[in-house]
Amino acid sequence: MSDPQVVALTGGVGGAKLCLGLSKCVLGDRLACVVNTADDFVHLGLRISPDLDTLLYTLAGCANAELGWGRQGETWTFMDALERLGGPTWFRLGDGDLALHVERTRRLAAGESLTQVTARLAGRLGVTTRVLPMTDDTVGTCVHTDQGPLEFQEYFVRCRAAPAVLSIEYSGAETARLTDAVKAALDSPELQAIVICPSNPFLSIDPILSIPGTRELLKSKGAPVVGVSPLIGGQAVKGPTAKLMRELGVTPTPTAIADHYEGLIDGLVIDEADRDWAERCGLPTLVTPTLMSTLEDKTRLAKQTLDFARAIRVG
Amino acid sequence: MSDPQVVALTGGVGGAKLCLGLSKCVLGDRLACVVNTADDFVHLGLRISPDLDTLLYTLAGCANAELGWGRQGETWTFMDALERLGGPTWFRLGDGDLALHVERTRRLAAGESLTQVTARLAGRLGVTTRVLPMTDDTVGTCVHTDQGPLEFQEYFVRCRAAPAVLSIEYSGAETARLTDAVKAALDSPELQAIVICPSNPFLSIDPILSIPGTRELLKSKGAPVVGVSPLIGGQAVKGPTAKLMRELGVTPTPTAIADHYEGLIDGLVIDEADRDWAERCGLPTLVTPTLMSTLEDKTRLAKQTLDFARAIRVG
Repeated sequence: MSDPQVVALTGGVGGAKLCLGLSKCVLGDRLACVVNTADDFVHLGLRISPDLDTLLYTLAGCANAELGWGRQGETWTFMDALERLGGPTWFRLGDGDLALHVERTRRLAAGESLTQVTARLAGRLGVTTRVLPMTDDTVGTCVHTDQGPLEFQEYFVRCRAAPAVLSIEYSGAETARLTDAVKAALDSPELQAIVICPSNPFLSIDPILSIPGTRELLKSKGAPVVGVSPLIGGQAVKGPTAKLMRELGVTPTPTAIADHYEGLIDGLVIDEADRDWAERCGLPTLVTPTLMSTLEDKTRLAKQTLDFARAIRVG
Repeated sequence: MSDPQVVALTGGVGGAKLCLGLSKCVLGDRLACVVNTADDFVHLGLRISPDLDTLLYTLAGCANAELGWGRQGETWTFMDALERLGGPTWFRLGDGDLALHVERTRRLAAGESLTQVTARLAGRLGVTTRVLPMTDDTVGTCVHTDQGPLEFQEYFVRCRAAPAVLSIEYSGAETARLTDAVKAALDSPELQAIVICPSNPFLSIDPILSIPGTRELLKSKGAPVVGVSPLIGGQAVKGPTAKLMRELGVTPTPTAIADHYEGLIDGLVIDEADRDWAERCGLPTLVTPTLMSTLEDKTRLAKQTLDFARAIRVG
């Protein structure tokens, strides 16, 4: 194993896209992705890790681009049969996707850690990037809404992120520990950049940052920390980021992202549509198209972000 | 609920075929099928009940006739994906079949009994016949072979019943209890016949008979008990019955079946190919074609078996 040169902090879809781009610029295990696991839950007796799965499928080149989750070439016989049997169908699980959850659950039950299981699954899928769960402990995102407290998947999938969010709590985070693999990646003597991917700051990145010691460790090596804004013209490409920010009383602009990550990031990548906000961010910015439709988009944005990071003088 | 008129003891494929025939003669919950659960096992964290499943699918009209197990119109995306992930693939689980196991496992974990779960699943599949697990306790078939002791599915599926069988043990049977539903069915004031289906006597029927009190209860109401031989010309239609009998030192003939069930059955249905054995069985026999290819075969054999039972004078 080589020491990582780049560490990315990421959640689901948007973050996974940038990680795929980064994996084209930083080969093999020189790239380490630290992944949010606060969305993880047990459903139908299966341990499901949505952000890990999205990243694995994306890096393996088998993500379902139309759905934005799950595997391409998926079949749905299980779900149809489960519906006929009266089982819960609000969380859709494709037939092939099920194999990942069943195998993960089986190995966890046999005593392997989530980190070990993830490394094994990544290997089987031909993924050489390090895919690192933020923790092997249990952290859960509890979303306090105008309809009461909801577990993350209840809020996000079952309620389609419709309830207004009052506050967000990361239960278990205060006692959770970063894994040794995450600590080693952030302690790499060859670390050149840390990238905060354009995932939801509140639902995907904050859980990682909420684990004690994470912020200190991110700054310990003096590598530049660069964020990529998840907003384009006041909207998120996908997901409830902008709606959520408004509900939390924050105007969804790049400056709000900069403020949110204040003291952590040394630079922010923002979209061309938000060019006018660049000077108001109070830190170095890179203005560039951030919509990642094609692999070329992803790779270009990743390369620009890394070049931007290397050009920043951290002080 | 009506009181059952007919109770069938059954295992997998052959037994399920006759139960389907019986369900055409004895409508709705007037037929109760008591099903072997000693083949049940936990695989991939899922509780799998092969004989219950085969019977449910058969009665629901969705059994996979080509395979002899599982559902028709099945897809295999899960298995393919599991293989890619390095998971165990020796026990084949179709995508739709998985739903039954996942839903059963989920409901058992939530505190329902196997009897309750099975009734619910049967209802969802439109099955009105009573499908009754022999017990809600855990009973396992351990097959002692020339290659050492094997759990049933290891012997039957993984090793394809190739090892020579020395003896068979039903672990847990001595402390297992028949369910209240089974007891009530056998205590029905309207009971007209008890049918021992043409399942493997050693691997499917004996586990039921090994639960304390079963034999007494089968005889308590004075209803005729009729067996249907699983052999045709010294061979089983499917499965290792004949091979197993030879390994246990028993020649696979109708007389061996009659001997095996001695003291329990009041009559035996044997195939036309075994006509010459009829007089040597030492009890009333019905000689008729027993191969059940079509639904007509199944219904005819069921009707003949019930007519035969009614004609027997028990005493």
